[in-house]
Amino acid sequence: MIDMPTFEDVAAAAARIKPYTHETRVVGSRLLNKYLGVEVLIKCENQQRAGSFKSRGVFNAILARSERGLVSKDRGVVTYSSGNHGQAMALASYQLEIPAVVLMATDSPKVKVDMAKSYGIEVMMYDPEEDDRIAMAAEIAKERDWEVIPSFDDGELIAGHGTAVMELVREVGHLDDVVVPVGGGGLISGSALAAKVFNPNVKVWGVEPEAANDAQRSLEKGEIVTISSPMTIADGARVRHITELTFAIMKAKVDGIVSVPDDMIFTSMKLVADRLKLVAEPTGVLGLAGIKKLVADGRIERGSRVGVVLSGGNVDLDTFAACLAKPDDAIAQMQAWLA
Amino acid sequence: MIDMPTFEDVAAAAARIKPYTHETRVVGSRLLNKYLGVEVLIKCENQQRAGSFKSRGVFNAILARSERGLVSKDRGVVTYSSGNHGQAMALASYQLEIPAVVLMATDSPKVKVDMAKSYGIEVMMYDPEEDDRIAMAAEIAKERDWEVIPSFDDGELIAGHGTAVMELVREVGHLDDVVVPVGGGGLISGSALAAKVFNPNVKVWGVEPEAANDAQRSLEKGEIVTISSPMTIADGARVRHITELTFAIMKAKVDGIVSVPDDMIFTSMKLVADRLKLVAEPTGVLGLAGIKKLVADGRIERGSRVGVVLSGGNVDLDTFAACLAKPDDAIAQMQAWLA
Repeated sequence: MIDMPTFEDVAAAAARIKPYTHETRVVGSRLLNKYLGVEVLIKCENQQRAGSFKSRGVFNAILARSERGLVSKDRGVVTYSSGNHGQAMALASYQLEIPAVVLMATDSPKVKVDMAKSYGIEVMMYDPEEDDRIAMAAEIAKERDWEVIPSFDDGELIAGHGTAVMELVREVGHLDDVVVPVGGGGLISGSALAAKVFNPNVKVWGVEPEAANDAQRSLEKGEIVTISSPMTIADGARVRHITELTFAIMKAKVDGIVSVPDDMIFTSMKLVADRLKLVAEPTGVLGLAGIKKLVADGRIERGSRVGVVLSGGNVDLDTFAACLAKPDDAIAQMQAWLA
Repeated sequence: MIDMPTFEDVAAAAARIKPYTHETRVVGSRLLNKYLGVEVLIKCENQQRAGSFKSRGVFNAILARSERGLVSKDRGVVTYSSGNHGQAMALASYQLEIPAVVLMATDSPKVKVDMAKSYGIEVMMYDPEEDDRIAMAAEIAKERDWEVIPSFDDGELIAGHGTAVMELVREVGHLDDVVVPVGGGGLISGSALAAKVFNPNVKVWGVEPEAANDAQRSLEKGEIVTISSPMTIADGARVRHITELTFAIMKAKVDGIVSVPDDMIFTSMKLVADRLKLVAEPTGVLGLAGIKKLVADGRIERGSRVGVVLSGGNVDLDTFAACLAKPDDAIAQMQAWLA
């Protein structure tokens, strides 16, 4: 029996995290609308604290556990992530003065490890080929009598993540569709909980890279599918399988998941830089990258009002510059429209 | 006798342009503050309509002339600019349904010419080596009985540009210093008019590229200095001389102008992309680029509260990627702090 979070949990999370997170902007563009065939309303979680939506769930998970007496200045948290979840945990641990251990893979980018350490948390390394990070976290938590917070498989994380779409709907009103990136499924789970309360007919779509389409395959097959280590530029979506919790919510609330090639990710990063003047990470633009396919397939109607979460902006500048430099028909097409 | 705009003109402009412009965000960063030695409050005019602060002045100039009966659906405007002023004019002309001619140099980037045309304005080309664009504009205006709006030398443009700093101060309160880019001097003139009303002790600083420091030299010499065609990445600051109007306002209201090498522009573009997740054009980051020098010279005190206008985001993606790819000690230093 899975204890699924509800919309009430999202609403409670919103109140709880308000002092610690940004109410990010919603932006759009005349030319993006023309290119995609719909009206897009883009929630800028790349400009969220610590650079991604993950801060929402992490602040909620720590604050909620603190209310329940599970964490304190003396009883910390243990988690595992060298990505945005780890960055958010480092920020939240620093600001809420809750000690934290974050397990990071030995092959993590040095800049991410250094950034996490700069907030004063304890970083421990694991070998991604050899070690079971979940078991390691459990062991550390047991030794110290601390609390494990996983990287996405947690009702309080999911409820916190849902606050992004809740804010989006409160700002822009009616939406026909909501499109978000899918890694472990925490963001889409929270997004669906939030969106369907405001409009039961809203369609909620997830987008994965083609090489990491485990959630798409899981929904199609009706059981959790595990894939081998995915090769995609979208590091935040390099997840080998979703979990019982996120699978259950997706089965109940999500209308479909599509996958896109990495080329479409590069195109979307360029569109976001060119039209919105924003730096987005590869995983961050997956939602936007999926819309064209969803419209082409007839799953999103032309002219719909579509909310999208631009989920993160943590990309090193060399990678970002390399992504911008890829040749691109879409940008050429848009410039042709301008002529 | 020069008819100088006043703070009242800035306040009137703010009311006039409100329906047509964005109230852009103000952002900051813990690490940027540490790097610069001050608290920076950055006004994101790169996300203004048409991608720069120029939309503020242009909407004000057209609307004010329309109120005075000088322009209408039948009596248009003539201007000259292949840069942000031209882009803003194209947008405003389209939206306010005032016909417009914009003179652009034959060597203008095709994407800027196409973008302007996409709004339905008339683009006419001039040879920057051979033709006097100001005389050409005057001639076209006379033939058609239309109104010339210059590219910066105009009280209504200046008053409109001042609304950016007015919004900034209203949002963040007290500022010790305001730092903005200087091209022709329209932005700094308006910024000084706005800032000094809220705090008579605020210092207003301008920043130019070293290769285009005509305003700095003019203020030092006490008369307008004309330089030869400047070689700098900051295309918006490639101005050969300021005008009587902007020179008069700068002499009265501006505390100093510094110049920075292009390397500092690249560094600032990278800091803005890395820390703020924003795309800025080279000219757009001049204000930020000047702060370190102003602090090193003792002109801005360490720990001050400093407002900066990030003035524009119109840079083609190839140029932007090339700027990000330049080697950089500042970025390395910041990453060392994180360790």
